[in-house]
Amino acid sequence: MNFTGAHILSIEQFQREDVERIFAVADRMAPYGRRQRVTRVLEGAILGNMFFEASTRTRVSFGSAFNLLGGEVRETAGFESSALVKGESLRDTARVLSGFSDVICMRHPQAGSVAEFASASRVPVLNGGDGSNEHPTQALLDLYTIAKELAQRQRSIDGLRIAMIGDLRYGRTVHSLSRLLSLYKNIHVLLISPPELAMPEQYVEQLRSTGAQVTISDQLLANINHVDIVYSTRIQEERFPSREEADLYRGKFRLNQAIYTQHCEPNTVIMHPLPRDSRSAANELDIDLDDNPNLAIFRQTDNGLLVRMALFALVLDVVDQVDSCAQAVRWHSARQL
Amino acid sequence: MNFTGAHILSIEQFQREDVERIFAVADRMAPYGRRQRVTRVLEGAILGNMFFEASTRTRVSFGSAFNLLGGEVRETAGFESSALVKGESLRDTARVLSGFSDVICMRHPQAGSVAEFASASRVPVLNGGDGSNEHPTQALLDLYTIAKELAQRQRSIDGLRIAMIGDLRYGRTVHSLSRLLSLYKNIHVLLISPPELAMPEQYVEQLRSTGAQVTISDQLLANINHVDIVYSTRIQEERFPSREEADLYRGKFRLNQAIYTQHCEPNTVIMHPLPRDSRSAANELDIDLDDNPNLAIFRQTDNGLLVRMALFALVLDVVDQVDSCAQAVRWHSARQL
Amino acid sequence: MNFTGAHILSIEQFQREDVERIFAVADRMAPYGRRQRVTRVLEGAILGNMFFEASTRTRVSFGSAFNLLGGEVRETAGFESSALVKGESLRDTARVLSGFSDVICMRHPQAGSVAEFASASRVPVLNGGDGSNEHPTQALLDLYTIAKELAQRQRSIDGLRIAMIGDLRYGRTVHSLSRLLSLYKNIHVLLISPPELAMPEQYVEQLRSTGAQVTISDQLLANINHVDIVYSTRIQEERFPSREEADLYRGKFRLNQAIYTQHCEPNTVIMHPLPRDSRSAANELDIDLDDNPNLAIFRQTDNGLLVRMALFALVLDVVDQVDSCAQAVRWHSARQL
Repeated sequence: MNFTGAHILSIEQFQREDVERIFAVADRMAPYGRRQRVTRVLEGAILGNMFFEASTRTRVSFGSAFNLLGGEVRETAGFESSALVKGESLRDTARVLSGFSDVICMRHPQAGSVAEFASASRVPVLNGGDGSNEHPTQALLDLYTIAKELAQRQRSIDGLRIAMIGDLRYGRTVHSLSRLLSLYKNIHVLLISPPELAMPEQYVEQLRSTGAQVTISDQLLANINHVDIVYSTRIQEERFPSREEADLYRGKFRLNQAIYTQHCEPNTVIMHPLPRDSRSAANELDIDLDDNPNLAIFRQTDNGLLVRMALFALVLDVVDQVDSCAQAVRWHSARQL
Repeated sequence: MNFTGAHILSIEQFQREDVERIFAVADRMAPYGRRQRVTRVLEGAILGNMFFEASTRTRVSFGSAFNLLGGEVRETAGFESSALVKGESLRDTARVLSGFSDVICMRHPQAGSVAEFASASRVPVLNGGDGSNEHPTQALLDLYTIAKELAQRQRSIDGLRIAMIGDLRYGRTVHSLSRLLSLYKNIHVLLISPPELAMPEQYVEQLRSTGAQVTISDQLLANINHVDIVYSTRIQEERFPSREEADLYRGKFRLNQAIYTQHCEPNTVIMHPLPRDSRSAANELDIDLDDNPNLAIFRQTDNGLLVRMALFALVLDVVDQVDSCAQAVRWHSARQL
Repeated sequence: MNFTGAHILSIEQFQREDVERIFAVADRMAPYGRRQRVTRVLEGAILGNMFFEASTRTRVSFGSAFNLLGGEVRETAGFESSALVKGESLRDTARVLSGFSDVICMRHPQAGSVAEFASASRVPVLNGGDGSNEHPTQALLDLYTIAKELAQRQRSIDGLRIAMIGDLRYGRTVHSLSRLLSLYKNIHVLLISPPELAMPEQYVEQLRSTGAQVTISDQLLANINHVDIVYSTRIQEERFPSREEADLYRGKFRLNQAIYTQHCEPNTVIMHPLPRDSRSAANELDIDLDDNPNLAIFRQTDNGLLVRMALFALVLDVVDQVDSCAQAVRWHSARQL
C-alpha cells in the first residue's frame, strides 16, 4: 500500500510487505525511542489526539510518539459534553477537527465510528480503537514484539508456534493478531480457553485457510510446552455468573513462574496486552514472573511507541528525513527501551 | 485600539478599523494555516488554555492556533474539582494562573467571569466564551468568513444583505454578529424566527440606529430570495413544550437543497455556527446541502483558526516577525483550508 | 545528594546543602520565568504529567515549568476509567508509563502511592502530592519564598521567626515546612491553632530536637507581633460539627489589614498555601490585604514555577546547559515574576 496520506483503520489494509515496511521503519525509530538522539522532523506539525473514550496509556503513547518526532499534540481525553452530545454527526465533527491538525488519532466506543470519521476527514486518521471492532496499532505492536523477540533467537515469524490463552471470544487483541499471523507461513496457533470463551469460528477459519495449523483446547498445561510465545489475556469476571465461578475458570488458565519452569521450554516468551489484573489471587499472569527475562509485556508497550512513530512517519512521508533532522540529547537519560 | 498586551473580552471593544486590522492579519496567517510553511515566532511562549467548561472544538482551535505560531499550550478541559470549587475567587485564580503562561484563553459558564478574571490577570486574556454573555472570536470568525466569501464575488461587507434564521432570542452568536455588522454601511438584516424566539429589541435598535435596514418576519421562504448570506442557527428543542411542537417549528425554518434551489439566488452563502443537529428529521440544515459549494460552514471553522492566530499575534505583538521566523514544511500535508 | 536521575519523593531526602543547591538553581531560572529570555535546553524531552487526582494549578505549574525549559508535556488530568481502575498495580502502570517519557510528575490520592510507583519507574519521578503524605515541591517553594523575602531584608533563614496559623493538624503543607525548617539554626516557630487542630507531636518534637524554639498557643493576636512571617492556612469547615461553629473558630484565626496594622511589625510577610476561601465572611486571609506589599501569596506560586524548573534541571542534569541554549524573547511580555 501507499502509506502517504493514508488512513490507518484496520489490519485488513495490510499485506505482508506493508507490515514488514512498518517494522523496518519502527527499527529506525529505536535510537529516538531510546533517547540516543532526538529529531525535529515534524516541527510545526499538529496531532489531533481525539480520545472520545478514556484510555490513559494508549492516548499518551500516541502523543509521546508524535512528540518524539518533534510535533505538537492537541487532545481530548474523554467524551466531555461535546458537540457529539448535541447531536452532531461524526462526519461534521471530522470536517471541523481535521481543519485543526495535520493527522488525527481517534478512539471512540462505537464500532465503525473511526472509519466513518475518516471518510470525512481532510487529514489522515489513525484508529486508536473503535469499540469491539479494531485496534490496529495494538496488533502491530504485538507482532512487532514477536518479531523482535524471535530475531534474538535467530528466528523469523514464519514457523512461529504461539499459544493464545484466556478470553479468546471477546479479546479484540487476539482476533487482530490472528489475522496478522495469517500473512505468515507455517504458523501453529494453539487456542486455549474455556469453551464458552473460544475464539470465534471466522478467525479460526481464516488461519486455517491460509495454511496455519490450529489447535483448540481448554487445557493449559498440555499445550504450552512446545511454543515460542505464550500470549495470555484477561478473563473478565463479568462474563461469569459469579466471582467464584470466574476465579475457578481463571485459575485454570493462569501462568506463574512454577508453571512456566515446569511446563515451558526455557526461552518461551510471555506476552499480554495489559493491563493485567493484580487484585485477584487468580490473576492470569503472576507477578512472580516479573524477574523472568522472557516476560516481554513491558517491551510490548515500549515497542508500541516505535510502531506508532513509524506509522506517523509513513503517513506523513518523513521517513527519509528523520535522521537528517536529528540532534544530540542534552539531558541525562534514564530511559532504556 | 492598541492590541499589544490587551485583553480581548468583548466585540464592544472594536471599531471598524480594529476589525479590519484583525482580518488583515488573519489573511497573512493563511499560508501557515494551509501548511504552506510553518513559523516558530512564538517559540518558548505558553498559552494557558483554561476551559472551565467543556468545549472540544473551541478549545482545540485556540490551542492549535497557538501551536501554529510555534508556542506551547498548557490547558484545563473542564471544571475538575479545582480551587474554584474550594471557594477561591476568580481574581485569586487569575493571579495564580497568569504566573504560569504568557497569554490566557478562558471559557467559563458564568457571564462576566472572564472580564473579572482578566481584571486580575498579569497577562492578556482572550474570552473563549462566558456563558450567555460573549464569545467574541466566534463573531469575528463569522464576519471574517462573510468578508472572504463576498470578496470572491468582488463585494465588500458594506451593502451586505443577510438573513438570520432560527433561534434569534437565545443565540449568542447572532447577537454578537449583529453588533459587529453595526460597524458597516448599508446593511440589510432579515431576522427570521418564530415570534417567541425573536431577536431581542436592543440588538434590533442598535442595528437601526447605525443605519442598517432591519426586516423582521416569521416566514422563511419569502425572505431568503434576495440575500447574500443565509445564517442558520439551531432551534433548541428544550425551548418548546414538546418535541413534536419543536419539530413543527423547526420544520418551518429549515433549509435543504430543494428549498435553496427554488428560493435562493445562485451564489447565496450558507452559514451556521455549528454544531448542527443531525438526529432529527427536522434538522435546520440538511446534509443534502453538503455538496453545495456555497455551504461555508466548514470554512467558518477553518477561518476561526486564522482569526485566533491573528489575535494571538496582535496581542503578543509579533505580527511583523511571523514571516521572518518561517520554515519550510517537511511533511506531506493533506490539509487544505 | 546526587540529583542526577534521582526521584524527588519526600523532603526527608534533603540535607541543608541540597535545599541550598535547589534554591541556587531556582535563582538561575528567574530570567526564564520572567521571560527575559527563553531556553530550549530540554528540546525533545517529554514530561509525563500524571495527575491521577485533579489539581489544575499544581498540574499546570509543573507542565509550564517543563515547557519553560523547552520540553514537551503529555499528561493525564484525573482518574479517568484508566487501567488502575481495571485492577492494574501501580508498579505495572509505572513500568508502562515510564516508557513514554523522560521524567514523570505524579499526583495520586493514596499516601505512599508515588513512592511505590517510583520504585518501578525507569525514569525519575517527582512527587506532585500523594494524599495526606507528602507534597515536597510545595514545602520547597514555601521555604524558597521565605528565603527570598528575607533576603530583601538582608536576612537569612537562620534566626527566622515564623507563626503558623490555622489547621495545623491536617495541613500537609505546614508539616512539611516545619520539617524543612529543622535544617536551619535558631528558628522560632509559633504554632497557633484551636487545640483540636494542633500540630501533631512528632513535628513539634523534630523541631525541638534540632534546636528550634516552639511556642504553642490558641491565641492569634498575642503571637504575631514579633515574627518575620505569618503563614496562614485554611480551617476546613468539614472538621467541625456545624458551619456556625467553624465560622466561630475561623474568626479567631483570621488575618485582615486592620489586625495586621495593629499587631504585626511593619515588614511582616504574609504567606498562605492557597487556595484561600473567599466565600465566607470569616475567611482566613481577607482580600483587604491584597494591596499590602508584604502579601507574598502570589509570589509563592510564581516561585513554585522556579523551584519546579530547578528540580527538572537538576534531575535531568542540564543546569549548566540552560544558559547556553538561551534565545531572545520575540513577543511582548506582560509577565512579571
